[in-house]
Amino acid sequence: MPKLYDCDISGSCYKIRLFLNILGVAYDAVAVDFVNKEHKTSPYLALNPFGEIPIFEDGELRLRDAQAILVYVAGKYDKTRQWFPEDATSQGKIAQWLSTGGGEVMNAAAARLVKVLSYPLDLEKLHAGANRVFKIMDDHLAHRQFLELDRPTIADIACFPYTALAGEGGIDLSAYKNVLAWIERIKRLPGFIPMPGIPVAA
Amino acid sequence: MPKLYDCDISGSCYKIRLFLNILGVAYDAVAVDFVNKEHKTSPYLALNPFGEIPIFEDGELRLRDAQAILVYVAGKYDKTRQWFPEDATSQGKIAQWLSTGGGEVMNAAAARLVKVLSYPLDLEKLHAGANRVFKIMDDHLAHRQFLELDRPTIADIACFPYTALAGEGGIDLSAYKNVLAWIERIKRLPGFIPMPGIPVAA
Repeated sequence: MPKLYDCDISGSCYKIRLFLNILGVAYDAVAVDFVNKEHKTSPYLALNPFGEIPIFEDGELRLRDAQAILVYVAGKYDKTRQWFPEDATSQGKIAQWLSTGGGEVMNAAAARLVKVLSYPLDLEKLHAGANRVFKIMDDHLAHRQFLELDRPTIADIACFPYTALAGEGGIDLSAYKNVLAWIERIKRLPGFIPMPGIPVAA
Repeated sequence: MPKLYDCDISGSCYKIRLFLNILGVAYDAVAVDFVNKEHKTSPYLALNPFGEIPIFEDGELRLRDAQAILVYVAGKYDKTRQWFPEDATSQGKIAQWLSTGGGEVMNAAAARLVKVLSYPLDLEKLHAGANRVFKIMDDHLAHRQFLELDRPTIADIACFPYTALAGEGGIDLSAYKNVLAWIERIKRLPGFIPMPGIPVAA
């Protein structure tokens, strides 16, 4: 059974929990004490020298990076291949948002660390970066139900958690109506599970 | 014929030029005036709202993000599928380094912008981030010829340019012997092309 090094309050770990639950894949979870930086201790640095969670193990394979894990899980466990299809065009389109989910959207994740765990980061700059990407996503979603392919893919899973958690970082999403509608749409997907700060649909 | 919105001094654009040349794919290049921020003007923001290059067009498809473009080009034009194989394990392993190439390695890219174009960024912090990832890559390459699969893949293409350009950002790679050997190995791949700051192998 695959193993996820996990933390309930990590949006990055939640990406994996959410996707595994949607696909109906059973796994073992190992709870990592993120608040006390257990993922920065030597046993964890031996598993992932970048000092980050999630970490995913499946047989002999060990992977770091939430987006890379989504790519693997889609290829391995989604027999329909609808979440990360095999053709070049679909993979390229989706990979754009894997970069965004691990990149620009992480401004919102870092803002949350400032607000919730008092990380010494530049909140104003993080808010500006987060608002920039949410505006782009909002425009992009004006005539789309999901980020690519007119259906849910790992592009959505990669961008969803820290967008939905933006309020915890002091970011107001109310101007981004299409983003808010997209969040509700994801919450209604079969297999959706909540996390602290992301409740089920009203 | 595909079209690349390109700039000769951009390491991100070079990722695409290098990979297309290795695969022997003909393309049209559109020169973008990066130094004068042409990519931030409205015609370019209409092509990519993130205000970044490269942008890649192929028929009806338009893609942003160097890593996403590598994924597409590999799937579309590499008939051997050795650069981004179709199996889940290979794709997951490679996707880790796509994240690193678009993430941590960009500390070195930003340091270069400080040194070469006087961008007002925190050079000390960027150097620390770059040295952290180069140490990880150096350890990882201690018993490997390439980042994954024991052969060149788009993982290497994604991480190579800004590693090889690190000196222009004031970062000394001399402590990272395995990284230096890997750079030389990439320079000897069939189809390798140089860019300003990355000469051909000695």
